[in-house]
Amino acid sequence: MNLRFFGISGIPMVQPGDDLVGLMDEGLIRMDETFENQDVIVIAQKIVSKAENRYVDLTKVSPGDEAKQIAVEVDKDPRKVQVILDESKEVIRACPGVLVVEHRLGFVHANAGIDQSNITNETGDDEDLCLLLPLDADASARRIRHDIRDRFGIEVGVIINDSMGRAWRMGTLGLAIGVAGFTALEDYVGKTDLFGKELAVTRVAAADEMAAGASLVMGQTIEKIPAVLVRGYGPSDPEEQAQRGVVPLIRPKHMDLFR
Amino acid sequence: MNLRFFGISGIPMVQPGDDLVGLMDEGLIRMDETFENQDVIVIAQKIVSKAENRYVDLTKVSPGDEAKQIAVEVDKDPRKVQVILDESKEVIRACPGVLVVEHRLGFVHANAGIDQSNITNETGDDEDLCLLLPLDADASARRIRHDIRDRFGIEVGVIINDSMGRAWRMGTLGLAIGVAGFTALEDYVGKTDLFGKELAVTRVAAADEMAAGASLVMGQTIEKIPAVLVRGYGPSDPEEQAQRGVVPLIRPKHMDLFR
Repeated sequence: MNLRFFGISGIPMVQPGDDLVGLMDEGLIRMDETFENQDVIVIAQKIVSKAENRYVDLTKVSPGDEAKQIAVEVDKDPRKVQVILDESKEVIRACPGVLVVEHRLGFVHANAGIDQSNITNETGDDEDLCLLLPLDADASARRIRHDIRDRFGIEVGVIINDSMGRAWRMGTLGLAIGVAGFTALEDYVGKTDLFGKELAVTRVAAADEMAAGASLVMGQTIEKIPAVLVRGYGPSDPEEQAQRGVVPLIRPKHMDLFR
Repeated sequence: MNLRFFGISGIPMVQPGDDLVGLMDEGLIRMDETFENQDVIVIAQKIVSKAENRYVDLTKVSPGDEAKQIAVEVDKDPRKVQVILDESKEVIRACPGVLVVEHRLGFVHANAGIDQSNITNETGDDEDLCLLLPLDADASARRIRHDIRDRFGIEVGVIINDSMGRAWRMGTLGLAIGVAGFTALEDYVGKTDLFGKELAVTRVAAADEMAAGASLVMGQTIEKIPAVLVRGYGPSDPEEQAQRGVVPLIRPKHMDLFR
């Protein structure tokens, strides 16, 4: 199998309400490319959130007592902590500089995935602006997938990725937060190795592996290459596992040994 | 940036002492490809361990008391538990079916990365055979890198990858366990975003992202595509950060909030 990751560059700063599929298509046209069946499109969470206007103006946030208390503990703006708590089910770890939560979508994520870089408002005054994750990242991925099908008659997989930290390793990794038309977790349970012995590693986080590879192409100043077209992975199954979105990648709380 | 991941297929079953660079080169020739400067070669741990003869015959292992006790707890072969303990600094979590340790190379890894699939001995009797991680995976990566330089005059990065589980997410991900000639952790500390604001996410686990992307190409029956050539990433810095191997990706114990 050969995989190609095409960075879709030249996408302008995304504004609320922008047509992401149109912007990606224009980028592909500049590259003499088009969407093809079985392509997988990996899109940075940031531009999805921007298009969905997931901004919060901190000047309009009144932190409660819990947020104020945690803010001291973690040394962050109490208004931002309030926004993080509003996006979370549970605080997993809080210590100076670190606030790891279970996001309401189920991911364990530092600061609930909220960030303040590469965003601005019309006046350029962005000190008090935060950008949340999409309301429902699987639904966002599905909308983009359906939009591509409706406009171009092409069936693609869509993965929305975001940079996440890890418990035991340094540095962030781009991982999947929303998936559509792609089997997020490849299940090899019951399959055998080359000698007929049952495989030890039975489930592979395929959407995370693709999200990570695409993240390399996006680089850090994410707005420059906020979307990556991946070609060569082959058919996913849009009708069965793929309908479950990112859910199979989220470890249920009762199976979590580390919180 | 466009990245291409070429799976090097047709590599025969690797035996102790085999010449991995020669086998990869033959695979590339069959694909009408050659090593090029700035390519990154991602190699499955399994074939590196096999070439380095990292087999352990369980019939020659006498489990000690600690191994016997843990074996009951985790419901595994006490001889295998002994081998895992021998490869580890510390047990992180032990419960039925799960034995997570700090490997002596620093990674937090289930079963110390030891596995029993896709391995066999000359007689085909492999029930009692285990394969350990390389003795020093960074050194293995360096040897392969230097071998390619010596034989072809080409400077490549080398990453050895292995499938690892995660604390909060399901499924394994191919991550780096040995790195040479490649900056494992890209540091953006002090760099600014498009608006001149300092970046929030400052360090990206580039070697892990590449290892993960390559893992998708390898698929699960790893012996079939045990090496992937990645082209298009651009220059790494073999003289500075890249000399540190995988070490920058390993979270120091004092920074670990989750053990």
